[in-house]
Amino acid sequence: MASDSLDELRSLMGSHSPPLDALVVPSEDNHQSEYVSDRDKRREFISGFTGSAGLALITMNEALLWTDGRYFLQATQQLSDRWKLMRIGEDPAVENWIVDNLQSDAAVGIDPWCVSVDTAQRWMQAFSKSRQKLIQLSVNLVDEVWRDRPAAEIRPVTLQPFKFAGCTVADKLKNLREKLVQDKAYGIIVTALDEVAWLYNIRGNDVSYSPVVHAYAIVTTDLALFYVDKRKVSSEVHSSLSENEIEVREYNTVSSDVSLLASGKLISSFAAKASEENGENVVNAGHIEDGSQEKKLIWFDPASCCLALYSNLNSDQVLMQQSPLALAKAIKNHFELDGLRKAHIRDGAAVVQYLVWLDGEMQKVYGAAGFFTEPEETHKRKHQETEKLTEVSVSDKLESFRAKKEHFKGLSFPTISSVGPNASIIHYKPEAGTCAELDADSIYLFDSGAQYQDGTTDITRTVHFGKPSAHEKACYTAVLKGHIALGNAVFPNGTTGHALDILSRIPLWKNGLDYRHGTGHGIGSYLNVHEGPHLISFKHHARNVPLQASMTVTDEPGYYEDGNFGIRLENVLVVKEADTNFNFGEKGYLSFEHITWAPYQKKLMNLNLMTPEEIAWVNSYHSTCQEVLAPYLNDQEMEWLKKATQPIASPAS
Amino acid sequence: MASDSLDELRSLMGSHSPPLDALVVPSEDNHQSEYVSDRDKRREFISGFTGSAGLALITMNEALLWTDGRYFLQATQQLSDRWKLMRIGEDPAVENWIVDNLQSDAAVGIDPWCVSVDTAQRWMQAFSKSRQKLIQLSVNLVDEVWRDRPAAEIRPVTLQPFKFAGCTVADKLKNLREKLVQDKAYGIIVTALDEVAWLYNIRGNDVSYSPVVHAYAIVTTDLALFYVDKRKVSSEVHSSLSENEIEVREYNTVSSDVSLLASGKLISSFAAKASEENGENVVNAGHIEDGSQEKKLIWFDPASCCLALYSNLNSDQVLMQQSPLALAKAIKNHFELDGLRKAHIRDGAAVVQYLVWLDGEMQKVYGAAGFFTEPEETHKRKHQETEKLTEVSVSDKLESFRAKKEHFKGLSFPTISSVGPNASIIHYKPEAGTCAELDADSIYLFDSGAQYQDGTTDITRTVHFGKPSAHEKACYTAVLKGHIALGNAVFPNGTTGHALDILSRIPLWKNGLDYRHGTGHGIGSYLNVHEGPHLISFKHHARNVPLQASMTVTDEPGYYEDGNFGIRLENVLVVKEADTNFNFGEKGYLSFEHITWAPYQKKLMNLNLMTPEEIAWVNSYHSTCQEVLAPYLNDQEMEWLKKATQPIASPAS
Repeated sequence: MASDSLDELRSLMGSHSPPLDALVVPSEDNHQSEYVSDRDKRREFISGFTGSAGLALITMNEALLWTDGRYFLQATQQLSDRWKLMRIGEDPAVENWIVDNLQSDAAVGIDPWCVSVDTAQRWMQAFSKSRQKLIQLSVNLVDEVWRDRPAAEIRPVTLQPFKFAGCTVADKLKNLREKLVQDKAYGIIVTALDEVAWLYNIRGNDVSYSPVVHAYAIVTTDLALFYVDKRKVSSEVHSSLSENEIEVREYNTVSSDVSLLASGKLISSFAAKASEENGENVVNAGHIEDGSQEKKLIWFDPASCCLALYSNLNSDQVLMQQSPLALAKAIKNHFELDGLRKAHIRDGAAVVQYLVWLDGEMQKVYGAAGFFTEPEETHKRKHQETEKLTEVSVSDKLESFRAKKEHFKGLSFPTISSVGPNASIIHYKPEAGTCAELDADSIYLFDSGAQYQDGTTDITRTVHFGKPSAHEKACYTAVLKGHIALGNAVFPNGTTGHALDILSRIPLWKNGLDYRHGTGHGIGSYLNVHEGPHLISFKHHARNVPLQASMTVTDEPGYYEDGNFGIRLENVLVVKEADTNFNFGEKGYLSFEHITWAPYQKKLMNLNLMTPEEIAWVNSYHSTCQEVLAPYLNDQEMEWLKKATQPIASPAS
Repeated sequence: MASDSLDELRSLMGSHSPPLDALVVPSEDNHQSEYVSDRDKRREFISGFTGSAGLALITMNEALLWTDGRYFLQATQQLSDRWKLMRIGEDPAVENWIVDNLQSDAAVGIDPWCVSVDTAQRWMQAFSKSRQKLIQLSVNLVDEVWRDRPAAEIRPVTLQPFKFAGCTVADKLKNLREKLVQDKAYGIIVTALDEVAWLYNIRGNDVSYSPVVHAYAIVTTDLALFYVDKRKVSSEVHSSLSENEIEVREYNTVSSDVSLLASGKLISSFAAKASEENGENVVNAGHIEDGSQEKKLIWFDPASCCLALYSNLNSDQVLMQQSPLALAKAIKNHFELDGLRKAHIRDGAAVVQYLVWLDGEMQKVYGAAGFFTEPEETHKRKHQETEKLTEVSVSDKLESFRAKKEHFKGLSFPTISSVGPNASIIHYKPEAGTCAELDADSIYLFDSGAQYQDGTTDITRTVHFGKPSAHEKACYTAVLKGHIALGNAVFPNGTTGHALDILSRIPLWKNGLDYRHGTGHGIGSYLNVHEGPHLISFKHHARNVPLQASMTVTDEPGYYEDGNFGIRLENVLVVKEADTNFNFGEKGYLSFEHITWAPYQKKLMNLNLMTPEEIAWVNSYHSTCQEVLAPYLNDQEMEWLKKATQPIASPAS
């Protein structure tokens, strides 16, 4: 499929006016989303690579795909020989590749709806040296050749009730408008899907794994607009939005409304009505010439706003900086934290139920020694034909345990269920038919999470049902030590995730080991599983966002040995005020609260490599696991959990 | 003195054409040195503040002094009430203060020889908003009012022999010229004093603590010039320089030679002679129009090059980036490392001899329990009039032990010898007459180092001769844990000191404690005690320089409680290749070698707060101390050291 399409695409590139020397096909949709709807998976369609992050560049005689360290192995396997893999961090960036490999004044086509202002400006700056041109296409060429492109489905927008959202839309709008005034902005264009959903306390079902709806918002000091396919908005939702004077407009009108906003002529029916009642002239409501001589700005986030919308603004009236909603959304309120804690307990119970089931199956089907027993020797027994366990079949079972839990809405990302060598593919996604069979002698890693209406979850555990090697145990223990070191950190306000990242690596580095991904990401409250603006990462863009109390963040170091095995341990943490004896510099100190509850596997730990403090921490965490999960487990499951969480004795004592 | 001068200075500012609204008086000399000669201590003269870092701003009705966290307490004590202390990191930066507090189009005077290009450009950019003007003065106004300004002394330049330098000048010039070609530069202006000294394998005696000479160098692909007061250059040094075709020119001619360099007309007598022999036209030797059409650049380091020299260049012909000599100098060769190791052993012996002496004196004069014994109660006994010990008298004794050691040339910085509350002043410098007396019940911190011809040293130990409080012990232990954590780190190539800095803070942060300075700095090979380009620091400018094998760096966390006590522990480390079991990512892993040798005080450690690994590390370090210092100690000193380094038993075992 993809290879014929590549030829068709090149033919369209050649007949375009001007003819295109290259076409960029990014992963993202009109909102720069990480997970996109099926009809937006253009890069996957054209390249065959299914990972969540990647960028394709098609020239007349080459096809290249850039992706990051999580996907190097997967991309190698999925790309045909017509494609060349470009490794981010090792190979030159796409814009530099273009500068070095295409002729001067080459025409590089992009769909301006799918490229962010940040990215487009970076490329244009790189191209300026060699006078290559970025051509904004009026149609997306991939769509032209994608004959069976899925149609848009009309899925209803729902309201997120106050008991879960914890803050009214009125308060969110009030805070946003205060921020606009503070930054001398007249209005803001909200382009990230989770920001629109969070601001208006609504959720959608347009994209797998993220409960968002394809929508934009424009908010000014006196109006609030919601751009969405109106067929998705029920009268109930409509009237709830109306209570906050939010006007619903068709998704496709956002572009022309941004132009009106730029010329100070955007008005809403609510504002018009209010002005009429006051006998004012409505045409200039919110106009930038509002008496004060100061020029007022239109705020947008260049990381999620696309080039197409930006083109409707004048460059001297824009405030290009991170959306204030990113930070507001990241700092959870008490209702959201309470919901997240509860969702993670139910989710942990599902994970324990899964482990109990899997432990039994592994013993039954493969004669494995099981979760608790370390056999003398490795033991390979073929399954019976009727009872095969595969990466996909077991992950379906895991989903079924979650699906029975209260408030379950779906998964929060494609479950990573991976045996042996597949576990070394950081974002492995097993496919029925081609996926591997479970194995009593290999490590099994599962990284999974769900959307519950009270919170989003994300947990990774790595287990072995047979005899792990001494090397596997040493690596598991190093990863666990890093996971504990980060989770136990205390740090002053102002500390970034960039600074903390090293804490999880130090135990691995001691052995010359490392992992090619960041250590943690924010997580939403029934929203995206990956949420900014903070990160725990060595990457540059994590440099400037300090962690703050009530943020969520994952703690997920790992170790991956290509072709052999992979290990990752992941809990979700909540940043909280620390209870320190002193408060040097009067900065206030922060620490983490673990909210994920599922046991680590004691059999994979080498206790001689752990400090007494680390062992004490595992025992304390396990004891809380038992306590919080008890109400959700039956007797057999509880018996298993008690065994799994029985205190470890330090080898020295 | 200073306050009359302030009035005189304001009168000169007023009569200047144009009249100056403000005058900036920085700490630095014409080379942006950290330690400057007495006649360059203009900021100290005008403000009375003696710290090594600070900047004075004098307006018609205010006088402000900016300094950093190391000096907040000291500055509070030294500044008269005519001065206002501005705390770097808490108060607005000087340029922002000027923008916010002086009228638009105010004239701000600077001596362009004392302000770096980096700094001047930052200020000009800040001023551009409010149209304030930076006025480059043709005379330094402070010099005009400084009647007893010390005269320049003529101190001889010496040669640093190959056995210590480890690399010939010919090789250094060859490497430098390769770097010039690589970066498409025609020549470089070397402005940092230690870079000039390092490049030409010479040393000087113009500045206290740093064995450098006031000099510049200009090196192009075909000439090498040395700008210095010729009276400092003996015929021996002259002829050694001549062997490498380095021409000596008067210090004051550098400015006009930079203009010649800019116009491609700078020639040396060596180049002229060589060209004549080849029958070439010499005027255009090295001219930028050299056949190739490519424009060749003149390289200088904007952090050490002053505005005055920069003004002689055309902005389109400059390569403004860190000098290549900074990194070349920081990565020590085997001879330098060997010298540094030896110098640190002799220096450690002097420190132990000092501790033995001080332990005896404290017991004799104050009836202290001593270094080893922890008394039941605190014990305050007044000294006898004839036998008083002061911060200055004991630090003189410390210097005397060092002065007896082979290759001793002087101290590497003013000794910090501080009792009790004074120890909380991070860069405290005791003055005879006003300094404190020693005290059997207070912590004593000494941070000191020396210049030996084979290496520069820098060590801090904190001790107590009476009964330390539980809080002091807890703080000492936290600092020690941080010191050990950094020293034991293993990390991949590419890791910066910016990333490692947190390792020393984590044990302090756990208690809500911290310190307001970086954790480590490079150290020279018989050169500056503070040497870049790397740092171990949370500060932004440490972000981009990875540590590399054979760099030196200090490991010096601390904790300072204003008005009570201060703790700091400091060793010099050498970055080395680590011996790891694996090499993930094929990056190569690095670790540290301690080269400083003197015991920590066991009495100040709370062993219950230390891990078995930390205790084992202290025992192993102490055992090496005993071994390497033995040849330099007499029987009594050795007996003391054996006691000080006797292994600690873990409380658990």
